Amino acid sequence: MAASLDGLVVLDLTRLLPGPYCTMLLADMGCEVIKIEQPGTGDYARTLIPIIFEAFNRNKKSISLNLKHPEGKDLFVKLIAQSDIVIESFRPGVMARLGLGYKELQKVNNRLIYCVISGYGQDGAYAKRSGHDINYLGVSGLLSLSGSADGPPSPGVAMPIADLSAGMFAVIGILAVLHMRHKTGEGQFIDVSMTDGLLSWMGTYLPEHGHIEVSKRTKMRRPGNGVYRTKDDKFITVGAVEDIFWNKLLATLQLSDQFSGQEYDSSTKRIEHAESLNNAIQEKILTRTAHEWLEIFNNQDIPCGPVNFLDDLESDPYVVSRELIVEVNTPSWGPLKEVRFPLKFSKATTEIKNPAPALGEHNQEILQRIGLSSGDIRELKRRGIV
Amino acid sequence: MAASLDGLVVLDLTRLLPGPYCTMLLADMGCEVIKIEQPGTGDYARTLIPIIFEAFNRNKKSISLNLKHPEGKDLFVKLIAQSDIVIESFRPGVMARLGLGYKELQKVNNRLIYCVISGYGQDGAYAKRSGHDINYLGVSGLLSLSGSADGPPSPGVAMPIADLSAGMFAVIGILAVLHMRHKTGEGQFIDVSMTDGLLSWMGTYLPEHGHIEVSKRTKMRRPGNGVYRTKDDKFITVGAVEDIFWNKLLATLQLSDQFSGQEYDSSTKRIEHAESLNNAIQEKILTRTAHEWLEIFNNQDIPCGPVNFLDDLESDPYVVSRELIVEVNTPSWGPLKEVRFPLKFSKATTEIKNPAPALGEHNQEILQRIGLSSGDIRELKRRGIV
Repeated sequence: MAASLDGLVVLDLTRLLPGPYCTMLLADMGCEVIKIEQPGTGDYARTLIPIIFEAFNRNKKSISLNLKHPEGKDLFVKLIAQSDIVIESFRPGVMARLGLGYKELQKVNNRLIYCVISGYGQDGAYAKRSGHDINYLGVSGLLSLSGSADGPPSPGVAMPIADLSAGMFAVIGILAVLHMRHKTGEGQFIDVSMTDGLLSWMGTYLPEHGHIEVSKRTKMRRPGNGVYRTKDDKFITVGAVEDIFWNKLLATLQLSDQFSGQEYDSSTKRIEHAESLNNAIQEKILTRTAHEWLEIFNNQDIPCGPVNFLDDLESDPYVVSRELIVEVNTPSWGPLKEVRFPLKFSKATTEIKNPAPALGEHNQEILQRIGLSSGDIRELKRRGIV
Repeated sequence: MAASLDGLVVLDLTRLLPGPYCTMLLADMGCEVIKIEQPGTGDYARTLIPIIFEAFNRNKKSISLNLKHPEGKDLFVKLIAQSDIVIESFRPGVMARLGLGYKELQKVNNRLIYCVISGYGQDGAYAKRSGHDINYLGVSGLLSLSGSADGPPSPGVAMPIADLSAGMFAVIGILAVLHMRHKTGEGQFIDVSMTDGLLSWMGTYLPEHGHIEVSKRTKMRRPGNGVYRTKDDKFITVGAVEDIFWNKLLATLQLSDQFSGQEYDSSTKRIEHAESLNNAIQEKILTRTAHEWLEIFNNQDIPCGPVNFLDDLESDPYVVSRELIVEVNTPSWGPLKEVRFPLKFSKATTEIKNPAPALGEHNQEILQRIGLSSGDIRELKRRGIV
């Protein structure tokens, strides 16, 4: 069986997280992703977050190439002529100043799809600003929905949401214009802003704002929808929002009589009594272990589940049954636990075939394609161009 | 200019959020998305979250069709023969029991791409369980990284992350196998699990776990990377992780002397002094307004930004400059503020052309394509089939 994107060549100039997550997904789906790295240093993630670098750069190749050197530029342009996609995440204008902007590269390869991932997009008020995940969360409004229900905004989840969602939006953009290219024969330029991606998610709030009352407070305090502590000092989740689930939950917890009044007969009304309802639920849930409650709730088809910590994931029955964690043999770290590509295709593979490449590991293989001999490559290396 | 996915026909059986977000992205990119809804009730979101329904179903068409009725099934199968993609989010096995599973539909249309979005996937230990966003967050491990740095897990952000990321993964899967179809001529089945998508994000933690110490505590408490309150009781974000930004931040806040020791000279070391460092930064930031600090920090190229609340978004200079919020005229709510498609393509449109459809609004248009007359449709309506 083949992979869905077999045969597509991606030149990857990105570093750290958002771009490499995008190209990891592309590589898992079969693209030949060639990291183009600065000779000597390479992707900063190699030293900054070496284990995450290893996991996020599996299935990729690496060449070292100095894009500031005229000969390095020439080689890059020759590679562009043979590639489908190029992805970069420099601040706007950097590639153009190197003479390698979309305008120039398009002339070399009109089928090229040029994708750039940035914090604030290629135009607009903040285009030239530096930024990190936390800043994009703030501008997008997502941070105002974070923290505790009644507290000030604070990063409520230790996960680089802006980075990862942007990597995914980049994949979406690339694949959409790839489809269009089948018809037009032409590539195009894709401007991915991490902040704009988060704004798209804010579409779950913005339209309602000004029409009905919306706040993180009400969304976070829905009774029967949350995290509860159990007798054995573990945590479980319950997601009993709809009346059918709510009524089952109350019955199971023997709380139906206590909360049978009209003031509790819709999920909207229940939010007004969130504290007393959630306290009563929590008190009951403290009387049994997590294991016991999950068995009871599952038998009743009440949405529930464990709160898995990092230690729990590898042996979690769900994670095991879906074969989500794959042990990859890596040169630097030995067997490393990585997460497989998250979709299952019926007629396409998404394997982890190779660990992350060493810096410049594929110089020979890739540069020979554009006509260089081993001797040429040795000489370029001596001169610091590769 | 055309849209990237013009000409592709999508039959959308999904409801509520994850599926409709997927098909909203597809519709914004030009797919003809036809919602297939139960006569009378339709997508529950129409009554449960009517404004969000409106926003997330823009650019789509709607037909009413009773899939439990033999004649309804026949009509559905005729539509399948003319479609590229079908998306559903029922519990596993529901479509097969209706005689409309992938196996059957594939015989009608071998090019069909069949995508199903579920909480726990089509196979595996939890396949038959009901669930909500909070439960998927718990199983995936993401919830254990939520809450405050030192507190128990709690939903740290009032955003349905599992739903939205799953919608995006579904788009990725569909577009990837669409590319493959250009070569093989065949569609395929795509199994999207909301939990598996979140697990993919846990790939930023899992590989490190067991090799180095990783916890939400250290990630949430990085000094100089967080939310700070200002003199005018607003909040700003600062993202000064790297030494170059950190040193600029300290200098700007006149804290360089106080924290010049070796114990502060790397971001790893600084985490050990997170509390005192963040307190000192917070104290300084309380001495000026948000506007003043953002101007000062931006002049120094220190990553920073406002913390926008829902009220702020519409007039935020960034949001305005990127034209992220679009006023859409809707029949039920008048002008509604929606968020545009988050990517910018150089040669493809992503417009909002139409508000959400009324239930069955496109019965005539769509059913005539499969040979029905107006009289036929009237008769089917009388009999409750459409």
